[in-house]
Amino acid sequence: MRTVSIGLVGCGTVGGGVVDIIRKHREDFRRRCGVDLEIAKVTSRTTSKLKAAGFSDEQIVGSYQEIIEDPDIDIVVELIGGNDVAVDVICDALKGDKHVVTANKAVMASHGKEVFEAAEEHGMQLGFEASVGGGIPIIAPLKHALVSNEISDVLGIVNGTTNYMLTRMSEDGLEYETALKEAQEKGFAEADPTADVEGADAAAKIAILASIAFNSRVTIDDVPTEGISHITPADFRYASDMGYVIKLLAIAHRTDGAIDVRVHPTMIPKTHQMASVDGVYNAIYVTGDAVGDTMFFGEGAGAGPAASAVVGDIIEIARHITDGCVHTLGCTCTEELPLRPIEELVCKYYIRMTVTDRPGALSETSRIFGENDVSISRMIQQRAFEEEAELIYVTHAAKEADIRTALHQLSQLDIVKEIGNLIRIEEH
Amino acid sequence: MRTVSIGLVGCGTVGGGVVDIIRKHREDFRRRCGVDLEIAKVTSRTTSKLKAAGFSDEQIVGSYQEIIEDPDIDIVVELIGGNDVAVDVICDALKGDKHVVTANKAVMASHGKEVFEAAEEHGMQLGFEASVGGGIPIIAPLKHALVSNEISDVLGIVNGTTNYMLTRMSEDGLEYETALKEAQEKGFAEADPTADVEGADAAAKIAILASIAFNSRVTIDDVPTEGISHITPADFRYASDMGYVIKLLAIAHRTDGAIDVRVHPTMIPKTHQMASVDGVYNAIYVTGDAVGDTMFFGEGAGAGPAASAVVGDIIEIARHITDGCVHTLGCTCTEELPLRPIEELVCKYYIRMTVTDRPGALSETSRIFGENDVSISRMIQQRAFEEEAELIYVTHAAKEADIRTALHQLSQLDIVKEIGNLIRIEEH
Repeated sequence: MRTVSIGLVGCGTVGGGVVDIIRKHREDFRRRCGVDLEIAKVTSRTTSKLKAAGFSDEQIVGSYQEIIEDPDIDIVVELIGGNDVAVDVICDALKGDKHVVTANKAVMASHGKEVFEAAEEHGMQLGFEASVGGGIPIIAPLKHALVSNEISDVLGIVNGTTNYMLTRMSEDGLEYETALKEAQEKGFAEADPTADVEGADAAAKIAILASIAFNSRVTIDDVPTEGISHITPADFRYASDMGYVIKLLAIAHRTDGAIDVRVHPTMIPKTHQMASVDGVYNAIYVTGDAVGDTMFFGEGAGAGPAASAVVGDIIEIARHITDGCVHTLGCTCTEELPLRPIEELVCKYYIRMTVTDRPGALSETSRIFGENDVSISRMIQQRAFEEEAELIYVTHAAKEADIRTALHQLSQLDIVKEIGNLIRIEEH
Repeated sequence: MRTVSIGLVGCGTVGGGVVDIIRKHREDFRRRCGVDLEIAKVTSRTTSKLKAAGFSDEQIVGSYQEIIEDPDIDIVVELIGGNDVAVDVICDALKGDKHVVTANKAVMASHGKEVFEAAEEHGMQLGFEASVGGGIPIIAPLKHALVSNEISDVLGIVNGTTNYMLTRMSEDGLEYETALKEAQEKGFAEADPTADVEGADAAAKIAILASIAFNSRVTIDDVPTEGISHITPADFRYASDMGYVIKLLAIAHRTDGAIDVRVHPTMIPKTHQMASVDGVYNAIYVTGDAVGDTMFFGEGAGAGPAASAVVGDIIEIARHITDGCVHTLGCTCTEELPLRPIEELVCKYYIRMTVTDRPGALSETSRIFGENDVSISRMIQQRAFEEEAELIYVTHAAKEADIRTALHQLSQLDIVKEIGNLIRIEEH
């Protein structure tokens, strides 16, 4: 059986996991999958780590170019992440007639088109299952098992950091700052958590999923994004009283010939299958015209899960190489669906504001909703402090543009101290 | 683009769904997947239905042999189900150099070996995603995306009929008979519900999943199976009080070089992701050494979901045919792991019995557990009727063989009127 040679670019957490799996299961893969995998060359910022990991001086090279130029390398595995060098690594490798496996969501969500063009042009395979949902199989199911469906909806809890924080805030009443600090201490959040808590990480992932689900290119820049930093324990209490939980949802809907895609804190019914996806777990909820509702659940991060997906892609390509029958399923973006501006979104909204506690506060605020065609399904008034009251409005289905106008007008009122939060409600 | 010709054997509920999907999305599949699918020939018991479905006299044939003998047919789709003719249809088709797609769990769970041998021998592809979990992608993820893992556990809620009944019994206190009647009225249960309620359907499915997950052939005859007919509303109340729900679980564990596989009612913690899988929905919970815990959720039955999986398999094969590069991934049973007899099972047990309400009843019954090395973690006594009391024992981890001896000895006691139920507890 021909040995399939792998060149590893980047050997941090995930890379280390890939090395472990291949070393641990090489014999199993030979027997069970009929492929022989060998990590022939590796490059990483910290060479010392590579030596410690048992790589020889011959295997350790100083640049990714050396790997791409090595005629014996079959598959280049890009695990340095980020959006700068990684694009070059991937594109250069494909143009150098190497198959590529990557876990890089940033590249796939922003440079997908050029990457796929390079793969197509050179007849190379590109695996990126690990770019979304860690070890959860979701890219492959969308491209294969579910391909007979017209997918109408993709809902994702695709960021473990924020889901962990929201779970702690919801179940134990933690403040945002406390939850963030704890997540950082536990290693679930980076020192700079911006990409997670502000939603950019989730935006990249839903861009990738929407592109596949709807066969139409969506990039991270197309995704209106809100983070979780405005959510307070009070919001969780009100949500729970109304039968909802709050999740940072990455949402993609196919709506009459257009794509509605966004990332923001969302209230979903406690009875929804996604409501019980807690802690660092991820889940992707996919609805198709034939299959109905499906959900894919698992660990969205960590060395093991991500490496599981990376090695899964490697084995798939290695099987084809070994069979001498490379089957390239490249870009599936065959349509060009327009994006629906979020201003045209129609859904229910939860709005929390603080007002001066005096006669007329309720009527004045309510009037503004009415004047903007926003009808109210539920309202709660609570005394916050001596002089202040907290108003909770839950709307019937309303237009985002009208809500924004109403909020702007409300913020102009003397009696309105603060618009505390706005959270969209997803009933699907 | 070359048209891929399909011969449909059996055109009932699922077959009708397949016809609908291909007619509805043929153009989409050409554009998005690069394959052109045509149902060229079809055979079914009731020809009238086929005419009504718009098939011409040329397309409708009287026997499956005519389809297999047609040199223009690329893929034979077997949807007659059952274990008699279906085996011949599948094997004859493969031997006739046709690729095969089937939804037939009975054949795959009992004749998997010979079917795969025929496929291998003739270099044909065999798709059977629809045989387990309806439209839920689970066969493909196990054979591809998760293949880098050593799978340790597979837990399945794979029978929608019983899951619907258990949900109604649990949430609304229905008796077994009432729940069954309702399921039949709603069309969730057959007139003869035996295969569902006695667990045979789930046994076939876990045999298929275990074979793939552990790379070792498991047949339906290898699966110790218990149905749900002994469960009473009382069992649900006790379970709930102790923090459990009751599900009919199809279980497969890899335990020190052996396979532990079985189907029976099982108590699982309310906090387990599977606990919220209710109604006719299915879910398969898979644990791997790298990926950790994953779950695949969706509709386990019905025309749409099953047809979604069948057409997914068809498109996959059609892609390969169209590329002129047929990639056969046949039998993956490369190991021969022994099966662990259920007598050697070690787990916690819930036992409900009715005893004569007189002094000593408790000590006598407790003594027998003690004498058989079964230690009790929890015990509840309740007055049932005038003269009778209901005893609930929950054991610590105990050996199935010891439990069976204890129950046999208990049944010999005069004071024991009835051993009402035994339910195994899965903490994983």
